[in-house]
Amino acid sequence: MAPSAVESVSNLPLKVASKKTSSSDLLDLDLQDAELDGRVLKTFRCLIADLCQQFNGGHPGGAMGMAAIGVALWKYAMKYSPENPSFFNRDRFVLSNGHTCLFQYTFLHLVGYEYMTFDQLKSYHSSRTDSFCPGHPEIEHAGIEVTTGPLGQGIANAVGLAMATKHLGATYNKPNFPLVDNTTWCMIGDACLQEGVALEAISLAGHWKLNNLVVIYDNNQVTCDGSVDMCNNENVNDKMRACGWNVIDVENGSHDIETIVRALITAKTSQDMPTLINVRTVIGIGSKSAGDAKAHGAAFGAEDVANIKRSSGMDETKHFQVSEEVYEYFRAAKSRGRESEAEWHELVSGYRTKYPDLADEFALRMKGEFTENWEEIIPSKESFPTSPTPSRKSSGLVCNPLAEKIKNFMVGTADLTPSVNMVWNGKVDFQNPDLKTTCGINGDYSGRYIHWGIREHAMASISNGLAAFNKGTILPVTSTFFMFYIYAAPGIRMGALQNLQQIHIATHDSIGTGEDGPTHQPIALANLYRAMPNILYIRPADSEETAGAYIAALKAKNTPSIISLSRQNLEQYPSYSSRDGVQRGAYVFIERQNADVTLIGVGAEMVFAVDTARLLESKFGLKARVVSFPCQRLFDQQPIEYKREVLQYRSTAPRVAIEAYAVNGWERYADAGWSMNTFGHSLPGKDAYKYFGFDAEVIAPRVSEFIENVRQEGVENLRGEFRDLNNVSH
Amino acid sequence: MAPSAVESVSNLPLKVASKKTSSSDLLDLDLQDAELDGRVLKTFRCLIADLCQQFNGGHPGGAMGMAAIGVALWKYAMKYSPENPSFFNRDRFVLSNGHTCLFQYTFLHLVGYEYMTFDQLKSYHSSRTDSFCPGHPEIEHAGIEVTTGPLGQGIANAVGLAMATKHLGATYNKPNFPLVDNTTWCMIGDACLQEGVALEAISLAGHWKLNNLVVIYDNNQVTCDGSVDMCNNENVNDKMRACGWNVIDVENGSHDIETIVRALITAKTSQDMPTLINVRTVIGIGSKSAGDAKAHGAAFGAEDVANIKRSSGMDETKHFQVSEEVYEYFRAAKSRGRESEAEWHELVSGYRTKYPDLADEFALRMKGEFTENWEEIIPSKESFPTSPTPSRKSSGLVCNPLAEKIKNFMVGTADLTPSVNMVWNGKVDFQNPDLKTTCGINGDYSGRYIHWGIREHAMASISNGLAAFNKGTILPVTSTFFMFYIYAAPGIRMGALQNLQQIHIATHDSIGTGEDGPTHQPIALANLYRAMPNILYIRPADSEETAGAYIAALKAKNTPSIISLSRQNLEQYPSYSSRDGVQRGAYVFIERQNADVTLIGVGAEMVFAVDTARLLESKFGLKARVVSFPCQRLFDQQPIEYKREVLQYRSTAPRVAIEAYAVNGWERYADAGWSMNTFGHSLPGKDAYKYFGFDAEVIAPRVSEFIENVRQEGVENLRGEFRDLNNVSH
Repeated sequence: MAPSAVESVSNLPLKVASKKTSSSDLLDLDLQDAELDGRVLKTFRCLIADLCQQFNGGHPGGAMGMAAIGVALWKYAMKYSPENPSFFNRDRFVLSNGHTCLFQYTFLHLVGYEYMTFDQLKSYHSSRTDSFCPGHPEIEHAGIEVTTGPLGQGIANAVGLAMATKHLGATYNKPNFPLVDNTTWCMIGDACLQEGVALEAISLAGHWKLNNLVVIYDNNQVTCDGSVDMCNNENVNDKMRACGWNVIDVENGSHDIETIVRALITAKTSQDMPTLINVRTVIGIGSKSAGDAKAHGAAFGAEDVANIKRSSGMDETKHFQVSEEVYEYFRAAKSRGRESEAEWHELVSGYRTKYPDLADEFALRMKGEFTENWEEIIPSKESFPTSPTPSRKSSGLVCNPLAEKIKNFMVGTADLTPSVNMVWNGKVDFQNPDLKTTCGINGDYSGRYIHWGIREHAMASISNGLAAFNKGTILPVTSTFFMFYIYAAPGIRMGALQNLQQIHIATHDSIGTGEDGPTHQPIALANLYRAMPNILYIRPADSEETAGAYIAALKAKNTPSIISLSRQNLEQYPSYSSRDGVQRGAYVFIERQNADVTLIGVGAEMVFAVDTARLLESKFGLKARVVSFPCQRLFDQQPIEYKREVLQYRSTAPRVAIEAYAVNGWERYADAGWSMNTFGHSLPGKDAYKYFGFDAEVIAPRVSEFIENVRQEGVENLRGEFRDLNNVSH
Repeated sequence: MAPSAVESVSNLPLKVASKKTSSSDLLDLDLQDAELDGRVLKTFRCLIADLCQQFNGGHPGGAMGMAAIGVALWKYAMKYSPENPSFFNRDRFVLSNGHTCLFQYTFLHLVGYEYMTFDQLKSYHSSRTDSFCPGHPEIEHAGIEVTTGPLGQGIANAVGLAMATKHLGATYNKPNFPLVDNTTWCMIGDACLQEGVALEAISLAGHWKLNNLVVIYDNNQVTCDGSVDMCNNENVNDKMRACGWNVIDVENGSHDIETIVRALITAKTSQDMPTLINVRTVIGIGSKSAGDAKAHGAAFGAEDVANIKRSSGMDETKHFQVSEEVYEYFRAAKSRGRESEAEWHELVSGYRTKYPDLADEFALRMKGEFTENWEEIIPSKESFPTSPTPSRKSSGLVCNPLAEKIKNFMVGTADLTPSVNMVWNGKVDFQNPDLKTTCGINGDYSGRYIHWGIREHAMASISNGLAAFNKGTILPVTSTFFMFYIYAAPGIRMGALQNLQQIHIATHDSIGTGEDGPTHQPIALANLYRAMPNILYIRPADSEETAGAYIAALKAKNTPSIISLSRQNLEQYPSYSSRDGVQRGAYVFIERQNADVTLIGVGAEMVFAVDTARLLESKFGLKARVVSFPCQRLFDQQPIEYKREVLQYRSTAPRVAIEAYAVNGWERYADAGWSMNTFGHSLPGKDAYKYFGFDAEVIAPRVSEFIENVRQEGVENLRGEFRDLNNVSH
């Protein structure tokens, strides 16, 4: 990769005031004794080598190569408070190359995060279950803003964190009261620049001109397979510039702390664009594997660790050496943090005097709470249409008043505004205020409607950053066709893993989506989300259940939800459907005493359950109960007594689940299924259903026959012989 | 977006010989009567408007805007044979903006693809189940190279198709015998340039210098939400150049057929890089919604359709008008196709004389077959190690001799060469032959080992293109950690939908992967792939079963497979395990007459089933059978008698499935599960298992208790009350 011209950062004054906030942001760049700097870097690198060597594993090379960057960040550039890691206006740091986590853990230790003791550092890769040093950074631990590891996710999260600052700043800041103006710093390696989700996020950050975002590229040109030029020869700097980024080169990233600091400050004070700092480093510097892929993901071996220490002028017979001098080097971090906090609290206090209402609202947002009585904003059952309505439309009826009134909502779509019905009265787009679009729809950073473009993965992963800025302050609501949440799956999973509340509005579910055909008709995707820990996949059957789905999603403060909706008109069942029922995952929709069968209806396919029940009664003289089953996870959380009541486990009547998805998983609740065994087909929705046997006239006789079989064979023999009743295949 | 300088294509000679092949490639660019050209374009556009209007739906705008591009392609630039759509050395055309499928269907009709009758064209969006005109192009229909629709997939497929040409050419072409030298043409819209998978694929195409790939960008600056500048303001041309692409601008893409043709020919004859032709067009040109998002995804309404015809000088009262003149305009396509074919067959015939052995091999490859007796290449059970072995290592023992000997194999990894064990003796990398890497590992286009970089999604989606070039000619084998096949899921799904054989080697499955922690430990991903139609997800328990997994995958000629492997050492069970057993999905591993329980063991967790069985016997006096269950899909395909024999449905002994994944779906085969209810934890593999209760000492007493409960309650009451026995949670 040919580095382009190094932008000059050498003429900056050594005392640089941030353009943005208070005097605590003055960066006091005293030139340290260069030898002391060197000893600190060597201490850090030997410590990393030791920490990996003790259990013969881990990722030493990247962390060692990035040592000087870490000093520049934690000693000079970043605003943070080790004694209060959740200081609201702190800078956010994201380690997108999460495998180098020792880099972060070690700096947290050196600057004085209390929980990050030496003993804890040494728990990395140990069998200790009380370790705060997992193999990748995890959000649960102080100083870690987001969980990273899957490559490309962190930089997308960082874009979300930077957006959150822009948005909250535009909403609450006033002249002389910059309440929210922190910087987001993100480390990436060569890998993150290859992942599609990162490329999507980079494109968006450039589009939005997030000048508060600084991405530091640990450019060591090595990945697991060897040198990066085996699979990537693009001109990274030119590519970033084409995407609307500043680029600053740093040639000697292994040692030149001062140049790195100047670059960081230049980037932090960028007026117009996000900045990439392209820092040349050497992976595993000081080791025999320096600059080689071997330094990436394995300990160096005792001999080389001794060698590293020897050539660093340290005692090769000792392990885990950190002199007092090194702790002293970082000593000011705590007091600087305290000062930053104190100034900010003073600022907030003045703000409260001058803008009491806004200050109240800001305080509520800081606590991560919604406006009180939000549930009352949701339309009553009586107010919903009674004629057939697509549930994507019902969703708009529920969500749009919420989004209008609850400022926590940031709603967006992956370029499906006309399809997903998420636009509320007076919505403003989140945009750079200087943008002038061809179609004339503009916005500013206070806007809460996000045009993600056709970037489903970044939509989910950036939303994790929005949600992680301060839990509950922003509630990201994403939207696209359900099928394309398969693109977003890695991001959605990371949201679930991090306990981040979000709502994903997934329209056009099932084969009912119609003419677009099998590429657009989800068959197996629900299986992923129903099995995934800590996520609610909810398929409401009508408007009332859609209201219930939103209530469940809004109450799940530590859990993302997917609300899965129809493209097509759905029958409304005001006599049967219940928002409260949705909270329990499944409930009796139509009761019949001494029923011959229980039919389980789900979401858009409820109509087939209800119609089959009616036909069984009118034509076959059979009594069918109907259970609505919008959410398996919520049902699983109910007490056994409730489950038995709803599903009548001990009855001799069989249960049949009707859903136009793969049946896998329904075996827990049903004895038989009417489902999909293949991909879908391009046909108008109604015809697609018919083509695959979703038609009461086809279902009822088969169910009747099944009931008869069960009577003959004995219900006990159903155990373990789940029946796929829908043999229609093409 | 600021277009950069238009590269001059106006001075090209009008007769241009391809640098590559035979005289049939001479493009006879007779300047047509400009008025005739105009009438053809108008006819085409009115026809599109009519086809959408008849059922009041579909995507007219893009197809209309691209009309001149279509003429340039099908009349002038592309090599194809309407009478033999599968002519081996044809150019491949991919419609990455698949929603504009009417564009392709209509040109297939006009140039004489026999099956694409006018009657068929009119079946678009109809309820006809015999339609060959689904809402997005589908590979099953002649002239369609790959199924597209989910955005970004098509361009990745096109990269794969172009790689296939490069690879086969480098393998079989000889001086004066360019057997395989076709061009791949790919249409994209504004959306594809936003999707991460496309950006990954673009980066790779530039890296590999695929000069036989031409991407034509239908730059209409409109997507569903409005003008593209609402979400994308990057300089596309500069970005592509930074990725190693040529860029050619065409300003008047709506009408200027000649300039488009010149651009296509320039691109086709590129010596060094892939080419993007950036063509400015107007979506829905001629309609009242021209240039507006409204033209994208809805019919124009009868009034505007009449208006379009009127302003096109056509009879507004008539529908579906195609004059003889227009058919005549494309008449030469068939004869040109016949000539191309004839020349190529002559070439092959000469080649056969001169290179008989290679010709035989080439013929076998064309038929999509492997070397005969491939099964004998797989090591025997006796040759495998008997000491504990990671199944990722077993996989190498099986796959590497196959890859060495069967040239169909193209094996690659998303930057995990040291972890996935897929390198065989003498492997050559697929690389541009001019590449000189820093680490000194180079290659050429004949290479069959692919460094995908950290681009899992593109790896899968490009592999679809490799597999689709000519079914069976290339067998793509991908590899990464199982967890990161969540990034690749949209591509893997498209492979399954298209019946493309591929093998995905997914190492580091389950929590046994250890220290990397929950970000790297898959819990729910298997649920997606077990439910997805037409894919085999196979988790072998030891080396012998790994051999079985490869045999199943290699026999599944129309189905992709995922072979799911351990990072850690696994016990080997030569007395129990069976490659033949794997072919049936599940089989009896350890039989016991009158057993008290059946334990289902799966993959890396088989050890817990076997150890629990032993402990139940030695400590609890209970008899446990063990069933190995590597593949649910294969088991589902077995006759009911076999299933009953293996799982003993009618026995009173319960069945317990032991797997460190979400249990969803095991309810079909078991009465209880020992599984995961949460995400994983960062601990060494063995400790992670212990932490979550995977330990025979913990499992056996619970299973014993469960057996006792079942005896008391009666096995019939297990129906519908699946038990999660593993309550360990943290």
